Amino acid sequence: MKLANLVGERFKERPADCSIDSHALMVRGAYIKYVANGIFSSFMPMKRILRKIENIIREEMDAIDGQEVMFPVVMPASLWEESGRYESVGSELLRFTDRNGNKMLLGMTHEEAAVHLVREYGQSYLKYPFMIYQIQTKFRDEARPRGGLIRVREFTMKDAYSFHTSQEDLEQYYKRCHEAYERVFARAGVPEVVSVKSDSGMMGGSVSHEFMLLCPIGEDSIVICPECGYRANMEAAQTIVENKRDEQSAPLTLVHTPNQHTIEEVASFLGSEAARTCKAVVYRKETDDGLVVLFLRGDYEVNEAKLKNIVGSDIFPANLDQSSGLIAGFIGPCGLDAFKGTVLYDVSLENTNNLICGANKEDYHYTGFDISRDASGVKFVDASKVVQGGICPVCGKHAITISRGIEVGNIFQLGTKYTKSMDMTYLDADGISHNPIMGCYGIGVGRLAASVCEVHHDDYGPIWPMSIAPWQVHLCAMRADDPLVKENADRLYQQLQKAGVEVIYDDRTVSAGFMFSDADLLGVPLRIIVSPRNNKENVCEFTARDKSFAVKLPLDGCVDAVKAKIFEMLAF
Amino acid sequence: MKLANLVGERFKERPADCSIDSHALMVRGAYIKYVANGIFSSFMPMKRILRKIENIIREEMDAIDGQEVMFPVVMPASLWEESGRYESVGSELLRFTDRNGNKMLLGMTHEEAAVHLVREYGQSYLKYPFMIYQIQTKFRDEARPRGGLIRVREFTMKDAYSFHTSQEDLEQYYKRCHEAYERVFARAGVPEVVSVKSDSGMMGGSVSHEFMLLCPIGEDSIVICPECGYRANMEAAQTIVENKRDEQSAPLTLVHTPNQHTIEEVASFLGSEAARTCKAVVYRKETDDGLVVLFLRGDYEVNEAKLKNIVGSDIFPANLDQSSGLIAGFIGPCGLDAFKGTVLYDVSLENTNNLICGANKEDYHYTGFDISRDASGVKFVDASKVVQGGICPVCGKHAITISRGIEVGNIFQLGTKYTKSMDMTYLDADGISHNPIMGCYGIGVGRLAASVCEVHHDDYGPIWPMSIAPWQVHLCAMRADDPLVKENADRLYQQLQKAGVEVIYDDRTVSAGFMFSDADLLGVPLRIIVSPRNNKENVCEFTARDKSFAVKLPLDGCVDAVKAKIFEMLAF
Repeated sequence: MKLANLVGERFKERPADCSIDSHALMVRGAYIKYVANGIFSSFMPMKRILRKIENIIREEMDAIDGQEVMFPVVMPASLWEESGRYESVGSELLRFTDRNGNKMLLGMTHEEAAVHLVREYGQSYLKYPFMIYQIQTKFRDEARPRGGLIRVREFTMKDAYSFHTSQEDLEQYYKRCHEAYERVFARAGVPEVVSVKSDSGMMGGSVSHEFMLLCPIGEDSIVICPECGYRANMEAAQTIVENKRDEQSAPLTLVHTPNQHTIEEVASFLGSEAARTCKAVVYRKETDDGLVVLFLRGDYEVNEAKLKNIVGSDIFPANLDQSSGLIAGFIGPCGLDAFKGTVLYDVSLENTNNLICGANKEDYHYTGFDISRDASGVKFVDASKVVQGGICPVCGKHAITISRGIEVGNIFQLGTKYTKSMDMTYLDADGISHNPIMGCYGIGVGRLAASVCEVHHDDYGPIWPMSIAPWQVHLCAMRADDPLVKENADRLYQQLQKAGVEVIYDDRTVSAGFMFSDADLLGVPLRIIVSPRNNKENVCEFTARDKSFAVKLPLDGCVDAVKAKIFEMLAF
Repeated sequence: MKLANLVGERFKERPADCSIDSHALMVRGAYIKYVANGIFSSFMPMKRILRKIENIIREEMDAIDGQEVMFPVVMPASLWEESGRYESVGSELLRFTDRNGNKMLLGMTHEEAAVHLVREYGQSYLKYPFMIYQIQTKFRDEARPRGGLIRVREFTMKDAYSFHTSQEDLEQYYKRCHEAYERVFARAGVPEVVSVKSDSGMMGGSVSHEFMLLCPIGEDSIVICPECGYRANMEAAQTIVENKRDEQSAPLTLVHTPNQHTIEEVASFLGSEAARTCKAVVYRKETDDGLVVLFLRGDYEVNEAKLKNIVGSDIFPANLDQSSGLIAGFIGPCGLDAFKGTVLYDVSLENTNNLICGANKEDYHYTGFDISRDASGVKFVDASKVVQGGICPVCGKHAITISRGIEVGNIFQLGTKYTKSMDMTYLDADGISHNPIMGCYGIGVGRLAASVCEVHHDDYGPIWPMSIAPWQVHLCAMRADDPLVKENADRLYQQLQKAGVEVIYDDRTVSAGFMFSDADLLGVPLRIIVSPRNNKENVCEFTARDKSFAVKLPLDGCVDAVKAKIFEMLAF
């Protein structure tokens, strides 16, 4: 490919609307073009990167006995009504009607389509286990697309679905898939991706993992224990708090706290600190509209994902009116008997005394609150967020760190949620009917490309790993108006192509600065420079985009050295 | 791949809802599964076929300097408003609103997206010509999906768009693309695909070709002259009629034809035939609601596509009321002076006399109508369908045949329709601004697969060409419960895989009939049978799915012979 013919305008200025580097570089390098909110077109370099990632994924899925299939982008609502998700999923599911008034939707995930495809096939236990996957365009009507290809509405995703006759078999396959994912990310040039336990949210299983690329611009918080290797998504991480009771519990004392509403205000007003308070947060359950009061230590925050799982319903922050029986800003554990909702105590309050808490009376708080003495029927739940420096739930050390990460893949043990609701059954060896057990496994192809760029770039452009780079070698004919330069570079271009090297060739008569800034933006891992000065020595310059080496090679026979280097960089 | 693990249920009975063979076989063979009207999922064998076709297309598009890109499936309405197609295209364009109320649509073709992608890039004449293409899912809300994958709503299509600075350059590229298409179809196993001139319809260009696979179940009528090779789509074929006038013209005579409404009734009532009548058909123009009366010889039919182009508007059959000034069933060329619409005469009436025609009076016709004597201001237009045995517009012989065909690809010279409406311009060498000239080029991937099956199958299953077959070799271990059979077949399976042969291996302990009917349904071009009888001779049977050969090969070293055969069958 000659660079002169490559469609797409590259430019130097960082676009104002790009908040993250990968987005800015992929726009500047003409990888992608904005079409609408969260919707992009891709130019050739991007398409080549995506295809290489897809091929890596395909090879690894095939290697764990996956069968590539294809589900529709547009599906009838009836399919999602079977599983109940047509109603339960929010407005990120794009629903519409076709010309005949039939209710349809755009696929954002394909559990229903997978069950539909294999429901007849999987009627005997002899057919199990099996896994099917696809690599395809999906649409998720995100409220807030952001960060270029990091969070979009239309995206290419690999989604896989496995079917099993026992939980043990699922777990074995889940492990194989976990390993395949590690290979995918390593081969794509980001072996640093880590898997973390996660809350499986609307997917409806219990065990699940997210594969995270640690990166400051990540949307997710990841809890890591550097001491023992424990890792979990913030939403799933277990909170461990070791409180020490004061030796003496002061008596429960009503104090006047006029106009002190926030925990910080109250604590400061009473000469204490947030950690010595018991605060309340109130939610409303989606299922029955009931109120939920969660008490937690004043310096901890609610983990809504964990709380959702505890109450078994989606929850929303509650607006309190008089009928609630609660007085906002002054809610406390004592004197709540008339309150009809759910009362929960977070583990951060376990073993505490002498705390400040609300008195359920306008402008009044208690001091000297002793949870074991003053609150009745307390059962602690884990509904708060893990904190930096907190206690690791595995090794028990005060070592927890919290990092940001981009989710580049996820795997779920789905159980029978979909096979039960969609009535997929098989007969076992004894002729007894069961619902198969499912797992599902996703990788966002475009997001992975953008994430690799985010962690592998410099100020001048991406530094693509060899395995997914749009080309392997960037050949620069510096001073292409010099006949000998042109001749040598042309010959090298032919030789490299003949040797099966993917080469992009810049033979434009432009300045070296212009040529190199384009090359930097394309981020091809290896570069060869033919120039008048090099010609004098009968060599070419052979350098790495990541500056790891720069050598001179004799023009004759340099192709073998280039091929060897490519081979080395592809090794995994 | 072991057949025992292949997901999908194959069965013998032809499904009642399958009207064509390819559809029935692809359902019976578990290639596809119905999801909704015109929407299918694909199992692994189908996906493999599609990927092979896609790769052939990709190679041929790259070979004519195409750059693979990707456009969105979901596009904002604003993009199609720029070109005017958001309004002009009918309900086959699926329109909807997203969660924020923005008007969106599902891409059924991507001219707008292509112009959008390259509008900034193509601002200088130096960047031209270039071609971009994608292979992607599209959605077209067809009123009547039919024939399995032949006419669907959701489909995978390769669509390409080229940009030029002169008509000559477009025409040169158009020719290259035409040749690339011929290679694609030949490589996909249907070299018999022919290109025909076509009406370009809503694409809006002038010159276009459709690539047709001749086949009785095809939806399109193709006009072919076997004498000189002239070929055209029925919609575009030129009608040539050589009428011979009677020596004497009888006088125009009013005759009473009570209750004779159709041409056949009138002709029969008057003891004549349809070919000796002048009939009228009436349309209403979409643009200004005006009426169009077309007169043509009674035995010819209107070609609405040609008529549309003549009147420059979409047209619909008109319902006539009194205000029209026309009396349905009795419309004729004489006495139409009060009629305010358009009156056209088809070439089938040229040089006629002594015809029967309507008298514009209830229950009356004329006999003796002489068009040159009795009608005024006649200018003939070509608005009728070519007939079997008609005159070839190129060689002039009475040799026209009409065949059915499936459209598997099309190419269009688009001109500046999109670049003008979407304001894409470039500066030429003199700094003068122009709109680039476009071509566009499509191939339906799924439809091509189904079409190949339609023309290459027997009663038992598809007979896939080697180049697109799901696997290259189908290995049957007949009596796999015989240890020696299993051992020899297993070893052969390993050897074939090691040699890079795509092999599907059936080692189930099922009957030979069951095994072969499955193999027939999968349509793999080469078959190897290991059996107890063969083992006695130390051979395997090597046969072709199309029955072109059946030989015995020594078990040792047979892999080389198999590889040689595959190589031979892939040669193009």
